[in-house]
Amino acid sequence: MPRLLQHRLDPSSRLARLMFAEYGVGIDLEDIKPWRREPGLLEINPAATVPILAEEGEPPVVGTLAVLHAIEDRYVPAAVAGLFPSHAALRNEMWRLLEWVLVKLNDEVTRYVLEEKIVKRDQRGMTPEPGVLRVAKANLGEHLHYFNWLFATRHWIAGDTMTLADFALAAHLSSLDYLGDVQWDTSPETRQWYARIKSRPAFRTLLNDRVAGMPAAAGYADLDF
Amino acid sequence: MPRLLQHRLDPSSRLARLMFAEYGVGIDLEDIKPWRREPGLLEINPAATVPILAEEGEPPVVGTLAVLHAIEDRYVPAAVAGLFPSHAALRNEMWRLLEWVLVKLNDEVTRYVLEEKIVKRDQRGMTPEPGVLRVAKANLGEHLHYFNWLFATRHWIAGDTMTLADFALAAHLSSLDYLGDVQWDTSPETRQWYARIKSRPAFRTLLNDRVAGMPAAAGYADLDF
Repeated sequence: MPRLLQHRLDPSSRLARLMFAEYGVGIDLEDIKPWRREPGLLEINPAATVPILAEEGEPPVVGTLAVLHAIEDRYVPAAVAGLFPSHAALRNEMWRLLEWVLVKLNDEVTRYVLEEKIVKRDQRGMTPEPGVLRVAKANLGEHLHYFNWLFATRHWIAGDTMTLADFALAAHLSSLDYLGDVQWDTSPETRQWYARIKSRPAFRTLLNDRVAGMPAAAGYADLDF
Repeated sequence: MPRLLQHRLDPSSRLARLMFAEYGVGIDLEDIKPWRREPGLLEINPAATVPILAEEGEPPVVGTLAVLHAIEDRYVPAAVAGLFPSHAALRNEMWRLLEWVLVKLNDEVTRYVLEEKIVKRDQRGMTPEPGVLRVAKANLGEHLHYFNWLFATRHWIAGDTMTLADFALAAHLSSLDYLGDVQWDTSPETRQWYARIKSRPAFRTLLNDRVAGMPAAAGYADLDF
């Protein structure tokens, strides 16, 4: 069984888990705290990031892009359409929005929230810096504004078909939602899309996650939130 | 002929140009200053980034991941091995290092150098902040240390075969080198690799680049630097 080194609230780890669940592949999860930069992790990945995919007799697959390509290459069941669409224009739009989420949304929102709420407390017993969280929240508002605009005319984020970009956005929003940082009431279009993706069986694995000492925000696991 | 909206020193634009040149495909270049966020750009790409690939009768291809996948899908000549290797372990290693370069190296080095030396001057007529450049330089030293370690045992960055990750690293280092920010004398292994990749015909297009008001550093275009 494939083993995934991950952190429960790391959005790229969540993206990998959503893919495995969607493809019906069971995995062993190994929770680590990558920011502690422990020697065992640094030996496999000098960048000290997760996810890392490990399988018997294979070299480890390291990093977000490598892991998502490896899952797509190895695990799409014959009867299922993969999350990388075959239509070129839709695939281009998927990559554009995947990059938006993994780079821009992460850079402007997710990584600050996780750093302030999770990493700082674990490393130095510190509380979050309100000024940083305020900026992250304002930035998230801008991103949701754009996502609402997209979802006003699209069923899925890249078009008519669900793609990997939907899972990437859902992974990020689910981490932020666990921490109570998504203002759903002002984002009806994105909320409707999120309710739809949250109802998929693949999502259950994430909704059951709990982080020690950090309870999930109200509504995190509710399909009607 | 495909048209590429780009900035001459933007490393992702350079990566796209290297791919086209390697595949022997002529392109029209349209230079823009993406940080000016002009309405024509925002309409195509609300993230205001380059590269953007435009072709007659096709929707534009927006962003680094979308553009590099589109080039690989459409333009690999039949007689040429593509830059995405077919061997799984090598491909995983390529994605790991591509992400290292496009995300980590960019985040810790390239984007600060370009912001300080190019964007600030254009936007506000300001000179670079020495403290920021000092940190970027120290970070680049750490990255080169890692690349030297890799190149001590590998002919190309992901293994025995040249891949897209080599082009990505070469694109970033060539932007930094144009601005005189790579200390080659303390990085013999990376220098040897760079001399090799710089000698490829595909690299000529970059070596002929000149940015108005910003002359290239000494040695930028020399194959023996």
